[in-house]
Amino acid sequence: MLEYRYPEQEMKFVLEHLVGLERLCQLPGQEEMSPELVEAVLAEAGRLGGDVLAPLNRIGDQQGSSLSADNQVTTAPGFAEAYRAFVEGGWVGLAADPRYGGQGLANVLGTAVMEIWQSANLAFSLNPLLTQGAIEALSHHASEALKQTYLTKLISGEWTGTMNLTEPDAGSDLAAIKAKAVPQGDHYLISGQKIFITWGEHDCAENIVHLVLARLPDAPAGVKGISLFVVPKYLVNQDGSLGARNDLKAVALEHKLGIHGSPTCVMSYGDEQGAVGYLVGQAHQGLACMFTMMNHARQGVGLQGLGVAERAYQQALAYARERMQGYGPDRKTRVPIIKHADVRRMLLTMKSSIEAMRALAYVASAEVDWVKAAADAEQARKHQVRVELYTPIVKAWLTELAQEVTYLGVQIHGGMGFIEETGAAQHYRDARILTIYEGTTAIQALDFVGRKLQADGGQALMALYQQMEEDASAWQALPQADVMAFNQALAQAKALSQQLLQQGSSRPQLAAVVSTPLLMLHGYLCGGWLMLKGAAALLAEPSHPLYASKQASAHFYCQHLLPRVQALAAAVNAGEEVVMDLDDQLF
Amino acid sequence: MLEYRYPEQEMKFVLEHLVGLERLCQLPGQEEMSPELVEAVLAEAGRLGGDVLAPLNRIGDQQGSSLSADNQVTTAPGFAEAYRAFVEGGWVGLAADPRYGGQGLANVLGTAVMEIWQSANLAFSLNPLLTQGAIEALSHHASEALKQTYLTKLISGEWTGTMNLTEPDAGSDLAAIKAKAVPQGDHYLISGQKIFITWGEHDCAENIVHLVLARLPDAPAGVKGISLFVVPKYLVNQDGSLGARNDLKAVALEHKLGIHGSPTCVMSYGDEQGAVGYLVGQAHQGLACMFTMMNHARQGVGLQGLGVAERAYQQALAYARERMQGYGPDRKTRVPIIKHADVRRMLLTMKSSIEAMRALAYVASAEVDWVKAAADAEQARKHQVRVELYTPIVKAWLTELAQEVTYLGVQIHGGMGFIEETGAAQHYRDARILTIYEGTTAIQALDFVGRKLQADGGQALMALYQQMEEDASAWQALPQADVMAFNQALAQAKALSQQLLQQGSSRPQLAAVVSTPLLMLHGYLCGGWLMLKGAAALLAEPSHPLYASKQASAHFYCQHLLPRVQALAAAVNAGEEVVMDLDDQLF
Repeated sequence: MLEYRYPEQEMKFVLEHLVGLERLCQLPGQEEMSPELVEAVLAEAGRLGGDVLAPLNRIGDQQGSSLSADNQVTTAPGFAEAYRAFVEGGWVGLAADPRYGGQGLANVLGTAVMEIWQSANLAFSLNPLLTQGAIEALSHHASEALKQTYLTKLISGEWTGTMNLTEPDAGSDLAAIKAKAVPQGDHYLISGQKIFITWGEHDCAENIVHLVLARLPDAPAGVKGISLFVVPKYLVNQDGSLGARNDLKAVALEHKLGIHGSPTCVMSYGDEQGAVGYLVGQAHQGLACMFTMMNHARQGVGLQGLGVAERAYQQALAYARERMQGYGPDRKTRVPIIKHADVRRMLLTMKSSIEAMRALAYVASAEVDWVKAAADAEQARKHQVRVELYTPIVKAWLTELAQEVTYLGVQIHGGMGFIEETGAAQHYRDARILTIYEGTTAIQALDFVGRKLQADGGQALMALYQQMEEDASAWQALPQADVMAFNQALAQAKALSQQLLQQGSSRPQLAAVVSTPLLMLHGYLCGGWLMLKGAAALLAEPSHPLYASKQASAHFYCQHLLPRVQALAAAVNAGEEVVMDLDDQLF
Repeated sequence: MLEYRYPEQEMKFVLEHLVGLERLCQLPGQEEMSPELVEAVLAEAGRLGGDVLAPLNRIGDQQGSSLSADNQVTTAPGFAEAYRAFVEGGWVGLAADPRYGGQGLANVLGTAVMEIWQSANLAFSLNPLLTQGAIEALSHHASEALKQTYLTKLISGEWTGTMNLTEPDAGSDLAAIKAKAVPQGDHYLISGQKIFITWGEHDCAENIVHLVLARLPDAPAGVKGISLFVVPKYLVNQDGSLGARNDLKAVALEHKLGIHGSPTCVMSYGDEQGAVGYLVGQAHQGLACMFTMMNHARQGVGLQGLGVAERAYQQALAYARERMQGYGPDRKTRVPIIKHADVRRMLLTMKSSIEAMRALAYVASAEVDWVKAAADAEQARKHQVRVELYTPIVKAWLTELAQEVTYLGVQIHGGMGFIEETGAAQHYRDARILTIYEGTTAIQALDFVGRKLQADGGQALMALYQQMEEDASAWQALPQADVMAFNQALAQAKALSQQLLQQGSSRPQLAAVVSTPLLMLHGYLCGGWLMLKGAAALLAEPSHPLYASKQASAHFYCQHLLPRVQALAAAVNAGEEVVMDLDDQLF
């Protein structure tokens, strides 16, 4: 049975026509990159994903992980072996800094490869995703000594990384963190409980590097009193060899709706003498360090939405082509259900959503490469601002769309979709966490309206609108109904953003009330922009294998998905009272 | 811990202000009914649901049912005892024919009571739901002898009923049914395999009455060759006592995404000498008989959408009031998350959806009562037409909304929502079957555009529009933005329906392509109509306990949910090509 095949043509299309792969390969620092290399890397990742990781996806779901009485976690059969193959392939450090053993390839190539892992096995892929987050945080904020000790081992994949933020009383609200760090010579003693720690303990790597948020004794209250620490499972000797077991352990595994293959741990630090940890960056600056990690992780989780959606689509499409039910126009010949109008409508909703998701995820990811290659500080700043603007959209919109896509994946299977053995339901369950972890959709929306829109007076967003307008001015050869639908959506987005910028200060609840519909509206807008841009790019290449497909999916997107902007705009226009006025007791 | 409390005020509001309970109680044949009786019945059902069924909901989910080597099914601990209490309360026959032991109360009261069972324990409630479907089918189509033998025992609840339609190759497409029935004296010998048989085997009742679709030897091909048979688990002696075990058995239980407490069986008929069955109605008329059963069951499944949504809302609301996270306007005082704008937006989306769902479900259910009490055949026909028009809307729209409501129920719980012990995820999993069984959303949509809209030239729908217009003409005192939003949606619905009626014959694919968005559009329209009608009804009663709540939820519905009509209308307007043109191979 075909479990999963990486969408080679779709990936190359986005890289070539929307990201600008050729230009990317010519940038300083990207000497290693070439279209041929990209093709070879994707093919190799596609083999590992399709042949090794994808067949483990259901095993991970069924068997999950187990915690022994002595706090050891055993992952599902095959996971440890697969991780070894993953490390041997050098996949963790694909886009990481060559000074610490990375391959230094483009961030966007790392993103495309990560999509493959996530489609193949969402639960498994969380392990390298978290490790890459740790790599990001240490690269930007750790001392050279910490980098030499930890970064090289994370980049090689020999050790894995985790993020320890959440506590029972501190979820979305990090100001409430209580974990403690007490200075002791060159290190700190960490104590406290952390929950929902993804891959917090496992049997795939010889050491685990925990990044832990905690408070120093003299810390101010709130988020300005949080510091970030490296707390390894095994202490590291001067020569780099592993030393004593640190005072930390997994004390429970969560029973979850999905991603059963990923051990989600309750971690306890410092039950005895205190866990040895090392400060990353400055004291009380932990939140800033964590944001470095979170920006990467948030785009990564958005990408998980794409990954699981693609997997659900491949499965639903294969079923729709095979499953005979009902009759063709002659009312005698049985047909596969892909012939039925509503099945096609569902498949096109999935297909066009996924294509828009991939386009936005890769374009957003490539902004990191444009930052690195910028000719001057001003150019770099502009691209960095764009990275930050895209981040909440990628996280929230892609993961919300993934719910719908995996939902439709079940629906297309009919009654079989509800049967666990079919596998469609697993994608639906696995996807459900994506709008929650790494900041819920509501948290992304507050980030979008607050830090990204209001904080800079709308400059970053207006620059994006301007780029969209410039692109749209070249779309004369596209169906004008589609271009009109886009222009209308763009005008609405602009008007609503400007209204918020102008009235936000005199209407203190407005931003929070409209945040989620406004964020989702911008997701659909970005999707429409890139779908039409892609369709327009292929107009000059009628022999391109995706020519007809891209015209059809852009057209469907504009007629069936983009109009949702109208409903979202109405909700934004409705303002505060409709949400805030009802007395709590009357709900 | 409070598991579930029946929404007494909300139910009474709909019965009194939208259904017209007082008028109903004065109808011929409803002499037993009174507002006091209704209140007492709901309170009693609320006790059984809240105290007995609701606490079993999670046990059913965790433990499910098991099948023994000798084909016996054991249901989850407590289910059999709960079913005995249910039978002792006389709940199965609440609205059934008194000539066969029913209590003859109004159908709409049966619906309100059924909502309670479904909220309390969706998996358990499927058992009486299927039994009531069997009661419907036998009441309308069975011979007096069959009624005397089977109907009385089903109405008392001593025996339970099932529907056996689906086969591995015949799901949505019933024309493909292969099960056989061979005449043998006064009965038939049935053989074949049926799948997805809800409560097909269990330990809660002493006999199970299977209604089975099969083909006679001389049957024409397709749906016109299907007949309906009663096939009891135990044969029944002349004196009504149980006789020999019939040749049928459960051969497997499905592993499902949700409703684990409901045994879903693969049933095998006639593995040995053939299962004894009795013809219901005329030969080859099984589909018509089954439709009687399905109309009831489809509204019942729509109601399940309401039931599970209400349960999810109660749980999310309780959590939102308890969970402290983040700060109030002073930025110092921690607040429960119900104070946060986006949590309120989600709660209001749930609340206003649920209220619209309940209004439509009860109003649709009461049409059955108006049919029975009609003064003449023409009145009866009009109400019957309305029942049939509402059925696909209730089934499809309520169950689709239930997905969103249970999704938001998980989301409001944040990370805890993904943990199975919390219970929010169970509602989300349980709800997932609702858009699939008893005809998928696509099947409901084809029924709506074909049998309900095109088949009668739009008369039934135009009559509904007219009633909406008459109601809307009295809404001067409601917020005019809301009334305008409704009138706009109504005008769009009317224009789109008329366009389909006019162009459908020359555009053969049009109806199928637009069916689902057009059906969903009418769901939102019906919801808007009844939300505003309810709000308007309370304007004269400012001291009513729901006065402020109803104004707020109608307002929210019109501003946040009703605008989805715009997006759905755009999809309908986009026509056929956007869905049908892409080559199958290019998906």
